[in-house]
Amino acid sequence: MPLKALVFDAYGTLFDVHSVIARWEALWPGHGANLSQQWRSRQLEYTWLRTLMGRYENFERVTRDSLRWACDNLKLDCDEARVAMLLEEYRRLKTFPEIAATLPRLKGRKLAILSNGTPAMLADLVWHNRLDTVLDATLSVDELKMYKPAPPVYQLAVDRLGVDARQIGFVSSNGWDAGGAKSFGFRTFWINRAGAPV
Amino acid sequence: MPLKALVFDAYGTLFDVHSVIARWEALWPGHGANLSQQWRSRQLEYTWLRTLMGRYENFERVTRDSLRWACDNLKLDCDEARVAMLLEEYRRLKTFPEIAATLPRLKGRKLAILSNGTPAMLADLVWHNRLDTVLDATLSVDELKMYKPAPPVYQLAVDRLGVDARQIGFVSSNGWDAGGAKSFGFRTFWINRAGAPV
Repeated sequence: MPLKALVFDAYGTLFDVHSVIARWEALWPGHGANLSQQWRSRQLEYTWLRTLMGRYENFERVTRDSLRWACDNLKLDCDEARVAMLLEEYRRLKTFPEIAATLPRLKGRKLAILSNGTPAMLADLVWHNRLDTVLDATLSVDELKMYKPAPPVYQLAVDRLGVDARQIGFVSSNGWDAGGAKSFGFRTFWINRAGAPV
Repeated sequence: MPLKALVFDAYGTLFDVHSVIARWEALWPGHGANLSQQWRSRQLEYTWLRTLMGRYENFERVTRDSLRWACDNLKLDCDEARVAMLLEEYRRLKTFPEIAATLPRLKGRKLAILSNGTPAMLADLVWHNRLDTVLDATLSVDELKMYKPAPPVYQLAVDRLGVDARQIGFVSSNGWDAGGAKSFGFRTFWINRAGAPV
């Protein structure tokens, strides 16, 4: 069955989360990579746990809370000005190098983002990377008040794009996200950037 | 309001998960701590993700899958015999040193375990540590086909013990589990064994 739409995860798939490491490193020399890794992993945990508990807070809040946690854990001084600066940086992540050339070549199908980010965070990313002309939709979990990999999140793409799940290709660099999408019924493409085991 | 029951998490709270590090270390010198840590963290991820996706597999299976993942990730040779031996070890975890003296002093209230483990895994732990005479109930999530911190798991303790949530004290060393129990409505005691930030 031919694919009528391609749906992309945002953070870590289209946009390079670790491009902010340099900024961490400037603020806290020697701790950039570690902070970035702990932040990201705690951020994901919070999305899963909040969804399981039925205690949704938006991704801006989760991102802030997880940054504070990671700073505390590494005993780094993280005042409000620094948190604000880092969150601002997070809204200006750049796409991975291959993305700019690849996306336009996939036109003909519907192209969309489906992400945990808030509509405002995603709008900034799309804008700064000039993806608005190439994307047909930018979908946020925020209206559902739950995070990936809860099945209603993937259903959102089916409903908004008006394309059957079996004709949607889902692209993610996150193994657990690709697993959730596959379990839901999408054709799934896992970009294994980290070389992790299945 | 006085507490009529105390409910304990099992792995990491009553029973020391990392007591198996010595066994890892003997099999794979230099990798024991790392393997144990990666195994445990992947095991938790699987329980959360499977619950979110509605794809429950029991804790024996999740424990086995996460061990294989951690071995692959660390490029350690992990054949079926070793997996079986390590899972056997997991059924013989010992209680933390203070537990044996503490539990009998708490009698008068109902005392129970509420755990992700299967009934068979928990029965072995209770038996090997001679806790059967001191506990009023050993409750497993298995009959619900979902893992902590989904609220129905905590509700199971209310239903089985016949005690109002506000009169149940819940004890866990896992911050996310303590958070889930508090969100549900239990009085919660977080044993912060690792000294982690809140």
